[in-house]
Amino acid sequence: MSQYPELTAAQLKEESGRLKKEYKAIAAKGMKLDLSRGKPDHTQLEISNGLLNALTDTAAIFAEDGTDCGNYGMLEGIPEARRLMAGMLDVNPDEVFVGGNSSLNMMHDCLGIAYLHGLPSSPAPWCKLPRVKWLCPAPGYDRHFMVTEHYGIEMIMVPMTPTGPDMDLVEELVAADSAIKGMWCIPKYSNPTGVTYSPETVRRLAALRPAAPDFLIFWDNAYAVHDLHPDEPDELISLTDCLREAGNPNMALLFTSTSKVTFPGSGIAAMAASKENLSYFLRHFSFQTISYDKLNQLRHARFFGDIGGMRRHMRSHAGFLAPKFQVVLDTLQKQLGGLGVAEWNTPRGGYFISLNTLEGCAKRTVELCKAAGVTLTPAGATFPYGADPLDRNIRIAPTYATPEDARTAAELLGLCIKLASAEKLLGRCVRSRAS
Amino acid sequence: MSQYPELTAAQLKEESGRLKKEYKAIAAKGMKLDLSRGKPDHTQLEISNGLLNALTDTAAIFAEDGTDCGNYGMLEGIPEARRLMAGMLDVNPDEVFVGGNSSLNMMHDCLGIAYLHGLPSSPAPWCKLPRVKWLCPAPGYDRHFMVTEHYGIEMIMVPMTPTGPDMDLVEELVAADSAIKGMWCIPKYSNPTGVTYSPETVRRLAALRPAAPDFLIFWDNAYAVHDLHPDEPDELISLTDCLREAGNPNMALLFTSTSKVTFPGSGIAAMAASKENLSYFLRHFSFQTISYDKLNQLRHARFFGDIGGMRRHMRSHAGFLAPKFQVVLDTLQKQLGGLGVAEWNTPRGGYFISLNTLEGCAKRTVELCKAAGVTLTPAGATFPYGADPLDRNIRIAPTYATPEDARTAAELLGLCIKLASAEKLLGRCVRSRAS
Repeated sequence: MSQYPELTAAQLKEESGRLKKEYKAIAAKGMKLDLSRGKPDHTQLEISNGLLNALTDTAAIFAEDGTDCGNYGMLEGIPEARRLMAGMLDVNPDEVFVGGNSSLNMMHDCLGIAYLHGLPSSPAPWCKLPRVKWLCPAPGYDRHFMVTEHYGIEMIMVPMTPTGPDMDLVEELVAADSAIKGMWCIPKYSNPTGVTYSPETVRRLAALRPAAPDFLIFWDNAYAVHDLHPDEPDELISLTDCLREAGNPNMALLFTSTSKVTFPGSGIAAMAASKENLSYFLRHFSFQTISYDKLNQLRHARFFGDIGGMRRHMRSHAGFLAPKFQVVLDTLQKQLGGLGVAEWNTPRGGYFISLNTLEGCAKRTVELCKAAGVTLTPAGATFPYGADPLDRNIRIAPTYATPEDARTAAELLGLCIKLASAEKLLGRCVRSRAS
Repeated sequence: MSQYPELTAAQLKEESGRLKKEYKAIAAKGMKLDLSRGKPDHTQLEISNGLLNALTDTAAIFAEDGTDCGNYGMLEGIPEARRLMAGMLDVNPDEVFVGGNSSLNMMHDCLGIAYLHGLPSSPAPWCKLPRVKWLCPAPGYDRHFMVTEHYGIEMIMVPMTPTGPDMDLVEELVAADSAIKGMWCIPKYSNPTGVTYSPETVRRLAALRPAAPDFLIFWDNAYAVHDLHPDEPDELISLTDCLREAGNPNMALLFTSTSKVTFPGSGIAAMAASKENLSYFLRHFSFQTISYDKLNQLRHARFFGDIGGMRRHMRSHAGFLAPKFQVVLDTLQKQLGGLGVAEWNTPRGGYFISLNTLEGCAKRTVELCKAAGVTLTPAGATFPYGADPLDRNIRIAPTYATPEDARTAAELLGLCIKLASAEKLLGRCVRSRAS
């Protein structure tokens, strides 16, 4: 078959008719599948079961420095947990603050502190300014965008490229507008594009000269150790080192968590920052809580031993995940290869495949899938305000389904993309004939 | 010995000299004791060790409704944890939201939501108002006051009485000033006074007719099950019932946690609210996190079974705590009884003894104790902005020290109160002679 965009109206009509028939037959089966959930399945979770037994010696609930993990105190986290999370974030343990179960919550809280109180370098708390703006590389993570939206911060979309955010645009924007106070980044296996920022991108980010003296990068290294090919992981250079070299040590907060390392929602989250920022944020966090769950911190530190133990654990995860990604990628290739209707990435880590349809086909595709029993992340969710300007990005999460279900769902997705594309191209032919 | 206030200048001088000598001898010993920490000691924590083993059957990490507690989801908490915490808060399980490890953090977050977004009944988000004020029964909990202060909310002190906050004043204030948006309450075994709100106080609170349409009581039932005499616990009537009867169902948020039930900092916290408020707050919390630690929720639910199990567990706590309270109370009586220099309460639950010195003697007493090796909560900490207008309240936390240390520390405290009182009274004599 030729590429769809080269087909004549008659050919498209015929193809569309054939696809509709096929679609109806599948829809009639009443499937109920889901490719929207970026989380491990239960079998995969079981490799972390040892964590539940990591702290049963009840005489041993003291941290290595003697801290009683069963009692209050130690807001910044116990030493062994700070060391473990420092390994994930590629920083020194004394630059790390280990918090509760959610790095998203830590980001939300840090943004709240900057919003209500400003940063040490802020002329004023952000809430006192007429406008606060934020750079949002897109496609990106919907929950990041929801956090900034929740604070009433104006989001500016920056396109993602294969090496990270479009840095020419980022440099231009932050230099020109002092209302731009920050930026979301997922530097490794970015959600959903799978892109790992290139060394040049990291260096240019670290060397930014923003008009705002209190510009702050939120560096969410959510997939720091989440390689699908552990022997050939993507390499992310150290933002912290680059910031120091560039004389911008305070310009970023780094975040990560064990949510997709052990149990999602029952893991530990951490942030890293310059000493100045760390002590500033810790002081503000001390108003909201006495301390986080140190028993769970100790459990994680004991279970992994060190970052090497965590990396070995991640190999087992990759063993579960890689085949699921492969089955979806293979199916997409089989369904859509050579048709000129979609492009997608081949992720080397993380939890998602990002797919771009022809312009204006993403919403229709997701709708068609839904009607035939396959749930996908809503089209547009990967953009600020849920609005994809070209209506073409679809985020595929292959991890929660069984490989069989993932294949079936991807087959339907392929079919729906073809159907939506044929409809779209046919509409264009009709319009161009009419004009 | 007569009451100090009745002594002549000469007698006071002699007494003061004798006390100073005694004080010097004790100070020379170089003690290092602490009555400032409102937390259990390690031995007491050990009664909760079973919690660490409550979830080791790794095949059984599903909640009763089938929820996989190891995975994301269920922001409102798992059913068995909601039921358990509903028992603590004396409400229905569907009125409960079980969160993370800290009820203080939940209060902070709820206040943040009201501050940035308002309540369903708010004419505007609180941050858009020229002034926001808050009623603070005092002596009270310093961390409550720190939260309101952190949001820049103006705190108005309301005196505590033996039946709760001065309700005449509360009614008058909230009716007159629409800038008063809320109030802190610790209704049972209040920190630090030990007062349990009387039925009349609860009813009058529930029936308030505030000028602000979005007035909100923060009902921190931190010591809901923390009876020192489990066979004769103080009874707190249901605020929720009273609110419904008064036609004010949305006027309060209730909070509690297991921080002093199992492991402080590694427990579970919960809030309860009307359905309208609960869905409003849950929607806003959904911006900050995906879900809280359900494994820890399940651990607690399994460990206790139900609220009856928790009450039995609290009896063991009382067994540790009651003797420590008694030793401090006995020592205070022995040191200060009949001298007319201090009054203190005899708590029936909670974690503190509240002591009032003569006016203007609290700071000096704490300073004298510190210099001789006994740390107390800073004088003033129990008041908004850390300022006790009469400089007389001292919060005593007898729970963390051993009974022996608690006795030694209380002896020194008694001595320091006598010394500070003698100095103070002598100063008055001198001044009255000079005038």
